[in-house]
Amino acid sequence: MRVMIVVAYDGSNYSGWQIQPNGVTIEQKLNEALTDLLQEPISIMGASRTDAGVHSLGNVAVFDTTSRMPADKISFALNQRLPDDIVVQYSCQVEDDFHPRYAACRKTYEYKILNRKMPDPTKRKDTFHYYYDLDVDKMNEAAAYLIGQHDFTSFSSVKAQVKSRVRTIYTAKVYKEDDVIHIRLTGDGFLYNMVRIIAGTLIKVGAGEMEPMYMLEIFRGRNRELAGPTAPAHGLTMIGIEYE
Amino acid sequence: MRVMIVVAYDGSNYSGWQIQPNGVTIEQKLNEALTDLLQEPISIMGASRTDAGVHSLGNVAVFDTTSRMPADKISFALNQRLPDDIVVQYSCQVEDDFHPRYAACRKTYEYKILNRKMPDPTKRKDTFHYYYDLDVDKMNEAAAYLIGQHDFTSFSSVKAQVKSRVRTIYTAKVYKEDDVIHIRLTGDGFLYNMVRIIAGTLIKVGAGEMEPMYMLEIFRGRNRELAGPTAPAHGLTMIGIEYE
Repeated sequence: MRVMIVVAYDGSNYSGWQIQPNGVTIEQKLNEALTDLLQEPISIMGASRTDAGVHSLGNVAVFDTTSRMPADKISFALNQRLPDDIVVQYSCQVEDDFHPRYAACRKTYEYKILNRKMPDPTKRKDTFHYYYDLDVDKMNEAAAYLIGQHDFTSFSSVKAQVKSRVRTIYTAKVYKEDDVIHIRLTGDGFLYNMVRIIAGTLIKVGAGEMEPMYMLEIFRGRNRELAGPTAPAHGLTMIGIEYE
Repeated sequence: MRVMIVVAYDGSNYSGWQIQPNGVTIEQKLNEALTDLLQEPISIMGASRTDAGVHSLGNVAVFDTTSRMPADKISFALNQRLPDDIVVQYSCQVEDDFHPRYAACRKTYEYKILNRKMPDPTKRKDTFHYYYDLDVDKMNEAAAYLIGQHDFTSFSSVKAQVKSRVRTIYTAKVYKEDDVIHIRLTGDGFLYNMVRIIAGTLIKVGAGEMEPMYMLEIFRGRNRELAGPTAPAHGLTMIGIEYE
């Protein structure tokens, strides 16, 4: 059977999701724990290959197993074999041909900015500290230009190797709670570094270095250099994925 | 001159505030950084000796120095000598006889409970995960009994060596934001383990094991065993201290 797991993690201590020669990754930890639990070699397929330092409340992965353990019980048994910075939230059986990356879905990401003069050590691992005052209304106005179907070439790393850089953003909101500015985006998919480049661009808008309307120029130019810098990884959290 | 510093820290990696033979403490780290910065032996006096694992957004300490460095510049220079889980928020000169523990003040503490079925690894260091549904309205109703001047013997560790266990609570509120229940208390002072015992008691109320009105019985009995258990340290954050 094919089993889906929904995985939350604090990415601070990992070299990202995807297995790599140097550094411990989330995928590796999950493969090891699943292989140990199910007593057969397990290799998961993840939905989002988050970068080093990026967190998640609900990344999705699937794997195939011959085990007869009820799929919905796997999460509990698995958590006993995982470190406390990786917690499987949920597990269930899915169709044998379900692939978390190719199925139609809505993904939600959140970028958090701690906007105050002094750093807050209790928030240092999941917010990006930005010293100068940011204008949240202007950031929200700029974010509204993201909504809809666009070519996101200007908002993606030149390293991204993909056929099409067209993506659809369904919602894009910027709001402040206490000292923390949240940038929350939901879309049908995100290119490599796209959310972090959007965050870096919105910070420029919030700081008054760019007018919200300049977002149109950035889209039109199809040039990475028009957008703002790539904001640091640790401010980013993958919130979750809804499948149709 | 006497200098006051306001200190925020993630207490996860420390054996609490107070210097002790085994384990690294916040007080020790501050003394070392200040001694290095000011080039004379510095020994701080702290307002709240928080336990191992307890966090702070604004604990207060003072020290005396012969340095001519402007008091308000000390925070910046000090932060360059501190690890990133301790951040001095502010520094200023105070009267030579000001003592942060004996001056009249209002202290605010917050206890955070993550109330959902599965743990959230991104919140594991500053919330206490509680699996069963808690009734926030009942917790808030029980918290209201704390307000005013009371003998808090039942809500303090038997280990606390103090003349009087009478304290005044000015505000006591329980509210929920997303999955996190906040218990926020402001008072003229708190006994050893008092906030954590109050949190443990309010959890019992929220879980339906104790009626809110039972708070009156707990006060009357002046017996630690009547109250709930001491909630774990890592859910507790010292928010700040206001001096008159």
